[in-house]
Amino acid sequence: MALTIIGGDDMTEKTFDIEKENFSKWYNTILKSANLIDIRYNVKGFVVYMPWAMKIIKRLYEMWERELEKTGHGPCLFPVVIPPENFEKEKEHIEGFEPEVFWITKAGKEKENLALRPTSETAFYQMYSIWIRSYNDLPFKFYQSCAVYRHETKATKPLMRGREFLWIEAHNAFETEGEALAQVKEDMKITKNVYDKLGIPFIFFQRPEFDKFAGAVSTYAADTLMPDGKILQLPSTHYLGQNFSKPFNIKFLDKNGKEKYPYQTCYGPPISRTLAALISIHGDKKGLILPFDIAPVQIVIVPIIFEKTRKKVLECAKKLKNELSGFRVEIDASEKRPGEKFYYWEMKGVPIRIEIGPKDIEKKQVILVNRVAGKKTVKEKDLLKEIKKQEKIILETMKDRANKSFNSMITEADDIGDVEKIMNKNGGFVKINFCSIGNDGRKCAEILKEKTGAEVRGIELNKKEKPKGKCIVCGKPAKCVVYAGRAY
Amino acid sequence: MALTIIGGDDMTEKTFDIEKENFSKWYNTILKSANLIDIRYNVKGFVVYMPWAMKIIKRLYEMWERELEKTGHGPCLFPVVIPPENFEKEKEHIEGFEPEVFWITKAGKEKENLALRPTSETAFYQMYSIWIRSYNDLPFKFYQSCAVYRHETKATKPLMRGREFLWIEAHNAFETEGEALAQVKEDMKITKNVYDKLGIPFIFFQRPEFDKFAGAVSTYAADTLMPDGKILQLPSTHYLGQNFSKPFNIKFLDKNGKEKYPYQTCYGPPISRTLAALISIHGDKKGLILPFDIAPVQIVIVPIIFEKTRKKVLECAKKLKNELSGFRVEIDASEKRPGEKFYYWEMKGVPIRIEIGPKDIEKKQVILVNRVAGKKTVKEKDLLKEIKKQEKIILETMKDRANKSFNSMITEADDIGDVEKIMNKNGGFVKINFCSIGNDGRKCAEILKEKTGAEVRGIELNKKEKPKGKCIVCGKPAKCVVYAGRAY
Repeated sequence: MALTIIGGDDMTEKTFDIEKENFSKWYNTILKSANLIDIRYNVKGFVVYMPWAMKIIKRLYEMWERELEKTGHGPCLFPVVIPPENFEKEKEHIEGFEPEVFWITKAGKEKENLALRPTSETAFYQMYSIWIRSYNDLPFKFYQSCAVYRHETKATKPLMRGREFLWIEAHNAFETEGEALAQVKEDMKITKNVYDKLGIPFIFFQRPEFDKFAGAVSTYAADTLMPDGKILQLPSTHYLGQNFSKPFNIKFLDKNGKEKYPYQTCYGPPISRTLAALISIHGDKKGLILPFDIAPVQIVIVPIIFEKTRKKVLECAKKLKNELSGFRVEIDASEKRPGEKFYYWEMKGVPIRIEIGPKDIEKKQVILVNRVAGKKTVKEKDLLKEIKKQEKIILETMKDRANKSFNSMITEADDIGDVEKIMNKNGGFVKINFCSIGNDGRKCAEILKEKTGAEVRGIELNKKEKPKGKCIVCGKPAKCVVYAGRAY
Repeated sequence: MALTIIGGDDMTEKTFDIEKENFSKWYNTILKSANLIDIRYNVKGFVVYMPWAMKIIKRLYEMWERELEKTGHGPCLFPVVIPPENFEKEKEHIEGFEPEVFWITKAGKEKENLALRPTSETAFYQMYSIWIRSYNDLPFKFYQSCAVYRHETKATKPLMRGREFLWIEAHNAFETEGEALAQVKEDMKITKNVYDKLGIPFIFFQRPEFDKFAGAVSTYAADTLMPDGKILQLPSTHYLGQNFSKPFNIKFLDKNGKEKYPYQTCYGPPISRTLAALISIHGDKKGLILPFDIAPVQIVIVPIIFEKTRKKVLECAKKLKNELSGFRVEIDASEKRPGEKFYYWEMKGVPIRIEIGPKDIEKKQVILVNRVAGKKTVKEKDLLKEIKKQEKIILETMKDRANKSFNSMITEADDIGDVEKIMNKNGGFVKINFCSIGNDGRKCAEILKEKTGAEVRGIELNKKEKPKGKCIVCGKPAKCVVYAGRAY
């Protein structure tokens, strides 16, 4: 098995070369060509994660886990199964999730009755009622990295909407409402810290009442935009109030010995979807583009081989690799032509390529090619410093591009017709005056979606824009400015 | 939530102090006191992994993943569900696993029919038949880190035998039988590399024909011994021959363009069980003992606080922690008495404790206490060097102890009565002359188990001891020396 062709990569002789304008084709092809996931597993909505994707995924998990542990969350792992008596304790929760639950009803020849976790509130909180006793136990902050299972009825889309997806879930409990709401802010900060390293732009919204997490008091969610103008939801964080602590009988004795219910939050950073966003937002006509931090291979060395100087060049490549041992480096010493190697590693999203031939060796230099910002000749002695510089340039360039594209997809509209036109043309977010994100706005949101396909995603946090005029749907005085758009 | 008391540790005022002779009590109490896992989750055989255990588990995974990637295995992740048509392809495999499978038969309101993976041969090999095309694709080596699900009918025991357990599974395919058998050896080497770092003694056996993995040509498994003399199976590696490649129609074109079935192996390092072994083999009357490499906290600094010098001592502790930033260090600045802190961190298995009081500061020294090899005074300037030295001493001491105990539990017996006596007294391995580990030995193994509780574990690899005399069960000429014992 050639090192770089684990699991049958699809590209050998040809370049990737697919215009991103045709996003769906681009996306499906890159998943296959870069050998990220295989959708041919014979159960609908379930995919196989291949090594190139898994290596990225492990680093995504690590990024989030580091942030969560820094902010006092302990790692844990709960069972994948949830007994129905837990699952049914919070009324709205079960109503929201029941249509999507996979049920285990048989074990060997015995009868069984267990839900496969679609999310784990009702697993965690059953134990929280045992663990939490006193104010000394609070705040209580646990998270787990795992897969969850939902029998999606919407069309599935690899990594974006599947029946098995990878995520983290953090479940916290606090003495006061204030602390719980501060946690929601901390979750947003964690989201920002991670996405800053990935160059993924997003807006955090307060979701409308009619689009909350089942059982939550309020839901806050980050949305990004795919190149086709459709919205992809990223992490969400939910303020649960005492909606779960009461039915689950989670109680603590406060400083005065009085029994109280804690206030809770939960936070769900999506790993599969973050990978989808990373692929889609940054990739280009040549294939993937990966930030230096999480690329499985950060630097590929391509020796320019002529028969006469083969040995010398390969030795030099090995020497270089040793000098760069602090990075994840591969030498592509395969028999392919240099041009083919260039295309291949560009398609795989490797951020830096180093070319080295006999003439370069004489001149004690290499050619350094940055996946997003061109090539330059670098003296060998300056290479380490140059790589550190390029590492930053790569992320900055990726961010600039991504932000420009993201911002260009935010528009405003004054009536439903405009929204429809925008949706049919470029999609993206459209800002509109809207009657209410309370339950009284539900009807208007439904009409908007029916006529334009655009969903009301909520009001932008930290901005609280003042509406001018009337709701574009019902014509009543607008109470807010909301963002709307078509979503995955 | 106090940093060190995540999730309600059970020990505050008292010492752990349980004699390990009463292993079952010791084990159940340490799981609770050190807050490793919680067995009170309300589904039988499913436990919650708590932060102290999860942090160890992550490092166990990393150790194995590093070894596997170094030997050319690509990380992947397959779906948790397996359709019955895959599952039923290999006859012996389904017969072996069917009694233990959890079945999903409902999704929302729809009917469903999916097995929850008890092991993933039949998930992987379905895809291998798509991926593997030519000799260029071979060897093909993939692994996944995951949980598997088996409805155990035997009594469950936390971390040792559960209905959900954590492991890694590696699935490989080769051109030739020779390469496949070399992989089996590589798997044994990987096992040794990891257990050397953990100080866990084991013997690799070739399992008898009648105790093979369902569908394998031959099974090799590492067994260790718990302090109560019962055997715990650790990793197993299986030579599958073409038993799966044929029914799954995995074919490749060899160098001459001829269609062939590859030879396969699979390897299953158990993470939950390794944690069980780690806890049980090394722990003592005071609690856990963890190797420096994988301890969640490697060094705890206990400042000896008097009111007058509190500030100075705490500052000094922080300075020390900074100097030791290459390690995982905690300062226990809680209000507990120093003795209580000592007991607590010893119980948690932290390998090195540093005590620092006002007099030590004056003398520019600290007291260093090694969890297994006593205390000494160390000059501050020598501290880093001393810790590196102690790190080695800890592992060596742990290994010596563990090996001594392991070897003391290996005995020989000349007849069934002896076996029974040994089993009832100290357990462990008993070496016996035995007719055969082929299927013709099955009957004798059943009789032995019925009369003594001891199972035939197979012949020791790399040793191939020559039997002298007759099978202790049937009296026919012995073809081999086997190890037997009672097992978890």
